[in-house]
Amino acid sequence: MKIRYSQITVIPGNPAKNYETCFDAALRAKTAGVNLLILPEMAIPGYMVGDKWEENDFIDDCEYYSNQLAKETNENFSLIFGSVAFYESVFGKPQNGFDGRKAKMNVAYIASNGKVEYQIKTLLPNYREFEEPRHFLDNLTATTMFSEGSISQMFKLREINDVKFGVTICEDGWDDDYNLAPLKILGEMGAEVLVNISYSPFTAGKNQSRIRHFSNHAKTLKKPVIYVNGLGLQNNGKTIFCFDGSSAAWDCNGNLIAHSGMYTQEDVDFLYQDGKISAVDAPQYIQRNELEDIHATLIYGIKNYMSQNGLKRVVIGASGGVDSTLAAALYAEAIGKENLLLVNMPTKFNSQTTISIAQKLAHNLGCWYTSVPVSESAELTKRQINGLKSTNSEGETMEIILSGFNMENVQARDRGSRILAAIASGWGGVFTNNGNKTETTVGYATLYGDVAGFLAALGDLWKHTVYDLCRFINSKAKKEIVPVEVLTLKPSAELSENQAVDKGLGDPLIYPYHDRLFESFQQWWNRASLADILQHYLDGNLADFLNHGLESELDENMIRKNFPDAKTFVADLERWYKLFKGMAVAKRIQAPPIIAVTRRAYGFDYRESAIQPYFTRKYLELKEKALK
Amino acid sequence: MKIRYSQITVIPGNPAKNYETCFDAALRAKTAGVNLLILPEMAIPGYMVGDKWEENDFIDDCEYYSNQLAKETNENFSLIFGSVAFYESVFGKPQNGFDGRKAKMNVAYIASNGKVEYQIKTLLPNYREFEEPRHFLDNLTATTMFSEGSISQMFKLREINDVKFGVTICEDGWDDDYNLAPLKILGEMGAEVLVNISYSPFTAGKNQSRIRHFSNHAKTLKKPVIYVNGLGLQNNGKTIFCFDGSSAAWDCNGNLIAHSGMYTQEDVDFLYQDGKISAVDAPQYIQRNELEDIHATLIYGIKNYMSQNGLKRVVIGASGGVDSTLAAALYAEAIGKENLLLVNMPTKFNSQTTISIAQKLAHNLGCWYTSVPVSESAELTKRQINGLKSTNSEGETMEIILSGFNMENVQARDRGSRILAAIASGWGGVFTNNGNKTETTVGYATLYGDVAGFLAALGDLWKHTVYDLCRFINSKAKKEIVPVEVLTLKPSAELSENQAVDKGLGDPLIYPYHDRLFESFQQWWNRASLADILQHYLDGNLADFLNHGLESELDENMIRKNFPDAKTFVADLERWYKLFKGMAVAKRIQAPPIIAVTRRAYGFDYRESAIQPYFTRKYLELKEKALK
Repeated sequence: MKIRYSQITVIPGNPAKNYETCFDAALRAKTAGVNLLILPEMAIPGYMVGDKWEENDFIDDCEYYSNQLAKETNENFSLIFGSVAFYESVFGKPQNGFDGRKAKMNVAYIASNGKVEYQIKTLLPNYREFEEPRHFLDNLTATTMFSEGSISQMFKLREINDVKFGVTICEDGWDDDYNLAPLKILGEMGAEVLVNISYSPFTAGKNQSRIRHFSNHAKTLKKPVIYVNGLGLQNNGKTIFCFDGSSAAWDCNGNLIAHSGMYTQEDVDFLYQDGKISAVDAPQYIQRNELEDIHATLIYGIKNYMSQNGLKRVVIGASGGVDSTLAAALYAEAIGKENLLLVNMPTKFNSQTTISIAQKLAHNLGCWYTSVPVSESAELTKRQINGLKSTNSEGETMEIILSGFNMENVQARDRGSRILAAIASGWGGVFTNNGNKTETTVGYATLYGDVAGFLAALGDLWKHTVYDLCRFINSKAKKEIVPVEVLTLKPSAELSENQAVDKGLGDPLIYPYHDRLFESFQQWWNRASLADILQHYLDGNLADFLNHGLESELDENMIRKNFPDAKTFVADLERWYKLFKGMAVAKRIQAPPIIAVTRRAYGFDYRESAIQPYFTRKYLELKEKALK
Repeated sequence: MKIRYSQITVIPGNPAKNYETCFDAALRAKTAGVNLLILPEMAIPGYMVGDKWEENDFIDDCEYYSNQLAKETNENFSLIFGSVAFYESVFGKPQNGFDGRKAKMNVAYIASNGKVEYQIKTLLPNYREFEEPRHFLDNLTATTMFSEGSISQMFKLREINDVKFGVTICEDGWDDDYNLAPLKILGEMGAEVLVNISYSPFTAGKNQSRIRHFSNHAKTLKKPVIYVNGLGLQNNGKTIFCFDGSSAAWDCNGNLIAHSGMYTQEDVDFLYQDGKISAVDAPQYIQRNELEDIHATLIYGIKNYMSQNGLKRVVIGASGGVDSTLAAALYAEAIGKENLLLVNMPTKFNSQTTISIAQKLAHNLGCWYTSVPVSESAELTKRQINGLKSTNSEGETMEIILSGFNMENVQARDRGSRILAAIASGWGGVFTNNGNKTETTVGYATLYGDVAGFLAALGDLWKHTVYDLCRFINSKAKKEIVPVEVLTLKPSAELSENQAVDKGLGDPLIYPYHDRLFESFQQWWNRASLADILQHYLDGNLADFLNHGLESELDENMIRKNFPDAKTFVADLERWYKLFKGMAVAKRIQAPPIIAVTRRAYGFDYRESAIQPYFTRKYLELKEKALK
């Protein structure tokens, strides 16, 4: 028996287009004498479509195209692919969900000889960016609550060419924390080959954990496992996810026998006979540096987000700082130097150092470059607004006064909303947001200024990863793409005399420390509380705690040097925590979409309300003791 | 037995503060000889706190303060109030949820004589802004999946002062579409008084439906029902919800015996004896105009969103159009005329008509007024950007050209991000977004221009409601607050000669039609599909379909007059649908938070992805036939 998986690209919310992709894969498979073609989860509807799942006409189309695809099967050619189904289609009778909406399920179509069976997804993720129970019934609920059947109806072996397949969907394979283990159940029922169709986005480090995980399933159950993941770019509005593929297969000893690349469309074939599976000319796993994966993901994300939105040209405000420099290098690679324009926008506070870096960067990339000074407009705003008189009906007057800090923000907004926006619209393009995750965490940026832009490609990268990626790009190119000067320059907004880079002045953040601190607030699965952090500071092992087993520049000495006593430590901790939970939330609400690469990107992946920061009793008690 | 409910204000994510509010209510109740005090759902933690539910230190504090409050009870004084509980606290043993996070439940604390029992919420809403299953186990799951108990453990009668109470939480009372009916179960078990503690936000029309609904429960089950809803302002980042109270009680015949006002803190007492309940000096239901409710909600929303964020002063760009006029009238009422500054920002395209309206408005409101012309800055931008030369490393040059349309957007951004932002920061305040729901639906606004602002108070109001509210404000004040000229003026952006109001030119939207059309796309529970709409147009009954049983200016003649044939109809339909699902999504991603008043506000209440518009087979086939 010849089995193939096709790692295909799925477009969100376009069953007609996805049907074509699947149909082409089926045609290729039939031509190649394949007996069973396996395609990813949700291959027909796509996955992240928001409340479009509530549009019944859309579901009708998904079912129509799923059934059309199933018609491609015959005696010698079967299909397994993911789609959505109404309860009615699966169980033959109409049924509403718990809250009155038509009941729907995330299913695998198992089609043989024109006939369709369904496997309903059992474990529905409901954390991070996932919210499947909002739209779908899980297998247990659908099978036991509404039908007259029993729980044994939940799992069935699917006989194709006399081989018994056990079919699962994505989270079904990640059963560690659940009270049902679908792969185990199917394995014990006598499945000869276990299949997991997925549609699972890239997260740094996930690939290796996935290999370990499914290898264990294969070894424990003594069955071959075929894992098929899709490609594509999907979003939930605020957060953009890159689906990287990395489909794979393991033999019944848990050995990895095939592993597809990231972001490449691939057909991979297997022969199955008498309990043994072997791969035919299959791609093999290549261990890669995590930075390489992140880099590939950002390039894929930028390229596809632009093409999905019909965009071609990009304008970047290039300050000569490290963030806009990395952004420029990524966009040049993703969309081509001819579509990229760097704009330097100096004020009197900008150093020749950073201006030279921006020029050199444009030269290295071979892209367009120009310069537009901000001073004249800043002066105009000062002249128009500073001292502006207002009156009321009682004949009183009052005057607006702009402070130095107000003028810093005037400059930032002038760059984003006046200059870059005008240039981008005149050129028929868009301009970027270059904020990193560290800034985004505490809102160290100006709304409608550097917070503006069509896409925040760096929004899920901590500052240290921004540097690492710059070095990675140079080392990969074996030449200087990123001007090396930027790697040693003190990061600075250069918006006032207090931020003069040539005097070694700049940002108020101690990046090696604050990166890790903010990561512990926001990104850990078991997030660190302020009480945890203060306790570890007092115990003298905060660096270890924050490094979380990862390599880092941060050590205990750095912490002690910057915060010699509890008072300075607490003041810094609370300063940033209040911003993180306060003003920064307001800025994130109006910030552009972020390409997710970590376990928690801002936006839909990390749901937050604009509420006042809260200090727990535990923290307040600990602090009181520490400050005594 | 003396029973009281307190309709109190709950702060999201602040158990310490909420404990104080509840403690005060308990103290008042004890002083008044009350035997049982009932407080709203989630009275200790608050409700909309995003992924803060995953912070275990926060839950610890919620439990601590809940238990502290329970200690206030004694032999003669019991409490029922909402909070969150770990599985461990309720069942006495630790248990993780399905995906490894610590299991938590939305519960009612039932405290008597210092002892606590828990009623777990049975029906968890998972639609619109709700996502309770993301964080909480439901009663069935918690009771039957993890404990050794049976399903009968889910519901218990709670004996207080020898009276049997059946306690439910919010959605538990809205069982129409669910397969479990908690109130019915408890009624049939022999409850003498049914209680529903809620934390349910305002939605236009919900109050009357609630009265009907719970009256039916009381009548059918022949038991008195006490419904206690909280007050407060909570948000999910993009969407702000006003919790209006409107707590009430019904006797066992379903008669409404008490009904609290909207947004007022109230203690209401009842006497219960021998199956009979009576209210003591209780507030009674006053039938109100829906506009009055919406008006009250917007005032409450503005006032509380500002105070929660420590804001006092507001700047409004007053164009003399109807939207900014309504915004100004609302803010003047919510925050006081002394905290409000209207800024008129004319270009050469602005008419004396609208400038005069803006001046008159400021005069009527008694607030601050000033004027800042945009032309000089627009000229500067044109001079700097139009014809701007860029070069590349190959010595090529290219030139940026700004079109008339580009210059319209330059003006809009200049008003928002340069002038209003600078004035607001100089005055120590914020500036508003005045966009209505119709514009928001199709993105008829400029990003970083009129899309900017700290809050979109009008973002959930269709254009016709904007007019209605203006008239309501004048009629309520019995004088002209809103200059009447604005009510008859053609709506226009006044950004070019093609939008000259004095020539009767303006917006491309036919509001009486497009309001209803967009409402059918976005706001209906069963949303209209393009195929539905086109079919009704062809059948000649589209106005009826879109009016949806509501009064409206729209009739079939208006539709025929504007779209005499299928071709013009389809062109208009697709033009706006593509914007709704396309560019407008990108703008909404970066738009400010909206105060929700309808059944679907944009933001967290209507989840959407930035994906290409999709036309279903059904629509495409119908269109093909229609255009033949």
